[in-house]
Amino acid sequence: MASETQAGPAGAALPLPPMKWDAWGDPALAKELSADIKGLLAAALGVTGDATPGPAADEVVLHPSRIAADDLKALAAAVGETNVSAADADRLPRAGGKSTPDLLRRRSRDPQDAPDAVVLPGDEQEIAAVLALCAERRIAVVPFGGGTSVVGGLDPERGGLTAVISLDLRRLDRLHDLDETSGEAVLGAGLTGPAAEALLAERGYELGHYPQSFRYATLGGFAATRSSGQDSAGHGRFDEMVRGLRVVTPAGVLDLGRAPASAAGPDLRELFLGSEGTLGVITAVRLRVHPLPAVKAYEAWSLPDFATGSAALRAVEQAGTGPTVIRLSDEAETMVNLATTEQIGGAPAITGCLAVTVFEGTAEQVATRHRLTRDTLLAAGATSVGEAPARAWEHGRFNAPYLRDSLLSAGALCETLETATSWSRLPQLRTAVTEALTTALPGALVLCHISHVYPTGASLYFTVVAALGEDPLTRWAAAKRAAGDAIVTAGGTITHHHAVGADHRPWMSDEIGELGVRILRAVKAELDPAGILNPGKLIP
Amino acid sequence: MASETQAGPAGAALPLPPMKWDAWGDPALAKELSADIKGLLAAALGVTGDATPGPAADEVVLHPSRIAADDLKALAAAVGETNVSAADADRLPRAGGKSTPDLLRRRSRDPQDAPDAVVLPGDEQEIAAVLALCAERRIAVVPFGGGTSVVGGLDPERGGLTAVISLDLRRLDRLHDLDETSGEAVLGAGLTGPAAEALLAERGYELGHYPQSFRYATLGGFAATRSSGQDSAGHGRFDEMVRGLRVVTPAGVLDLGRAPASAAGPDLRELFLGSEGTLGVITAVRLRVHPLPAVKAYEAWSLPDFATGSAALRAVEQAGTGPTVIRLSDEAETMVNLATTEQIGGAPAITGCLAVTVFEGTAEQVATRHRLTRDTLLAAGATSVGEAPARAWEHGRFNAPYLRDSLLSAGALCETLETATSWSRLPQLRTAVTEALTTALPGALVLCHISHVYPTGASLYFTVVAALGEDPLTRWAAAKRAAGDAIVTAGGTITHHHAVGADHRPWMSDEIGELGVRILRAVKAELDPAGILNPGKLIP
Repeated sequence: MASETQAGPAGAALPLPPMKWDAWGDPALAKELSADIKGLLAAALGVTGDATPGPAADEVVLHPSRIAADDLKALAAAVGETNVSAADADRLPRAGGKSTPDLLRRRSRDPQDAPDAVVLPGDEQEIAAVLALCAERRIAVVPFGGGTSVVGGLDPERGGLTAVISLDLRRLDRLHDLDETSGEAVLGAGLTGPAAEALLAERGYELGHYPQSFRYATLGGFAATRSSGQDSAGHGRFDEMVRGLRVVTPAGVLDLGRAPASAAGPDLRELFLGSEGTLGVITAVRLRVHPLPAVKAYEAWSLPDFATGSAALRAVEQAGTGPTVIRLSDEAETMVNLATTEQIGGAPAITGCLAVTVFEGTAEQVATRHRLTRDTLLAAGATSVGEAPARAWEHGRFNAPYLRDSLLSAGALCETLETATSWSRLPQLRTAVTEALTTALPGALVLCHISHVYPTGASLYFTVVAALGEDPLTRWAAAKRAAGDAIVTAGGTITHHHAVGADHRPWMSDEIGELGVRILRAVKAELDPAGILNPGKLIP
Repeated sequence: MASETQAGPAGAALPLPPMKWDAWGDPALAKELSADIKGLLAAALGVTGDATPGPAADEVVLHPSRIAADDLKALAAAVGETNVSAADADRLPRAGGKSTPDLLRRRSRDPQDAPDAVVLPGDEQEIAAVLALCAERRIAVVPFGGGTSVVGGLDPERGGLTAVISLDLRRLDRLHDLDETSGEAVLGAGLTGPAAEALLAERGYELGHYPQSFRYATLGGFAATRSSGQDSAGHGRFDEMVRGLRVVTPAGVLDLGRAPASAAGPDLRELFLGSEGTLGVITAVRLRVHPLPAVKAYEAWSLPDFATGSAALRAVEQAGTGPTVIRLSDEAETMVNLATTEQIGGAPAITGCLAVTVFEGTAEQVATRHRLTRDTLLAAGATSVGEAPARAWEHGRFNAPYLRDSLLSAGALCETLETATSWSRLPQLRTAVTEALTTALPGALVLCHISHVYPTGASLYFTVVAALGEDPLTRWAAAKRAAGDAIVTAGGTITHHHAVGADHRPWMSDEIGELGVRILRAVKAELDPAGILNPGKLIP
């Protein structure tokens, strides 16, 4: 995608990650804030000026690389000299993920943490060799896909070892096999969303996994973080698409998933889905794919309020009427047009709460699914507002994170967090999280939507916008802590699709209990006895 | 269910398991073989006489209980004196499962293995106390649900410890909670299928899990073995219904599943689904439930051959047309009417291969699902043969295992095995398994059906009928070994829904690799360091 065109640090020896080092995505796609948004920021948050601009890439100061010359030489012997670098220009773009705290840290002029070297293995044998020498030489390894983590999953922590490397998996970029009869494709873990879809589309197939990180994130990252895409109502979560996966660990290679379903003991795939690079390096995934849809249909809806809208989505999901996409913005998100990013801050397109539905498949499937969903939504109190808002949502579906960059530059802090729970607990969970955020950040705007539905419950996704003010890192950390505690108390999961990383690790004992944590530690001790794999993430 | 009426061993101190000690299910439901079947057995297999009858319950000789008096006293202190017994009449009905080898062993007049005592805990605290004292006193624990294992999952192995107890979970029999909004119910692990459905039906809800063991097996057993029911096309596998579960282990209690879906690390529920009592005792499950269907529709089909039929089922599943049940018998199974048990051995009802479809839901759902499925099947070469065969299948859906008892008494060995793979590998897998079985058991009838379909593949279920002959245990063991090896070589899973137990354990290294086995051992060492939980099962 954008790796050739982006403005990265000068002097890089290796291909750059697809995202700009200090911002979301491709700067060519970033937009100036409209007069509408600026007006909104001024009116709602008192944000009027521009924040101090951050340093240019060559002004950033990194802590010097701690990798020993001999270790670098050994790594070069394992993967080839052209695939290893300890240059700052290669280290900086892998210094972390893309949370707002990450971006704030990147914009600092103080010395920054970064991996001590970057390594680009070409195949499983090279990965095994790298893990073996890192275990022997006590070097931590942070697997790197697209670099889109928003939970600190890429923090270059050494975990008490001598150094830390970024293991960039971009060279694992092949379509290994497409079984059209079974609807299964084996794809390299380093393929980005668009690269994977392009390879499949050549053969008439689609994966259908479209998270907001789609343009940059990789299949291995989707698997390692239990990603969920915007089409999850139709195509499921990424973990539901995975039929098999290969994982290289310091203790050997795993090849899991012999059948579409099995009763042959615990499903070990589910240990590596969500393992976030702490248990092994996912190298290839065998995925359920489907023919490219022949037809798409769109319809947007107005619901009088969030409770009615939530009940309407529940009715659709529990009846199994089959929309590919279904999502509901709350009143605040609807009012600022957050779901239709081109119009953000402009006059509200509709009153109440906006819901979007999209339908895909054959002509008959689309007609049936659309009709049944429409009947269910109308019966549940929805009013059709036509195709346009649904198409506008789709047009801007990957653009919201760019907005964050521009807001940051304009002096506004913008961050998101998400959770999920059962339908019956959803209202209390939303209230609890909203109260926690607005208490911790007085005056902040808190917007919410439902974007993933299940027969028994749904996700809640919160967007928080506040004045950047003094010490935004500390203030956001306090707000995040309050929100996380509120989620746990209200019975939600600490993360529905952003993963754990470093940022959600404090709540893992609440999520799975102390004994659950001990299970993860036991598995890690077996697979990674030297503790080299992604220290400080996921497992407390 | 049948526990009050069945003819069990005299002198039992505890309530009996719901199945007769030496046969499948309730003897009142067992049927004499028809003249048609007897004719078929004589013609096809040369089976003409009756086998030697087995011993009556009071003629069975069990190896004496090895439990120490002091241990029995400690167990009684933990669960109450009336809930512990070392009497033979209580031990015999928990001596094993219901595979054909199990039944052959039960019919032996040689001394038989049995658990040294039976313990009926009433709640989690009592289970924790039992596990603690068993760990301290080195006593193995075999969790016992309905007793329907056909893979040796209940074998009373001591694993080098001093004794083995059967931990019968029948007292965990409550509906703890029904959340109608979310469609979730929390149910005790000891509830049988019918007992759970009765509790839900009182409130207008259904679980919809109908495996062949439905009448006797328990929810905990369904979870511990990754059971899959005959309605899996519509309602999914049991593991897909599980939203949460509680597990008591020697190391503490786990309460897993905070949300319908989560990205908070590996899904640890999936470690206990399929754990077969080796990692902990499942005490309660939170399950997805749905309103009782308002309408049901039935249609049966004739397909010219198995390949066409298999492609037709694939088309239905990949198009997502929504049948609740869809299954396909091969030519041989169709010819002997195995799918419609009332007519077994009679004149074939249809030519080619019989497929059965059932549709459930609201009137509109059923009409839509039926129409779309019908269109797809007709386009794929199916001919409708009306409702009757589909209703006949449903009428006899739980009865096939009873037939096995009668066949055994008539001198015929009848056993089943099952696997699953991707659609593209299905034909080769079927051929390989059939050849392995007919080579090992010359002259045997091998019948096959598909009863569980997925977008990327399906299950294959084989029924083998042969003359009992000399030393049937050894001959069946050789056939089973050949079939298992063939499954593994052809890329199938060693079991799609019967689980691993003792019988499939030799193939677990093929299934998940040596490193996968090491993971399971590491988890077990953490949770069950004394190795008391179900020794000799699942984990090599």
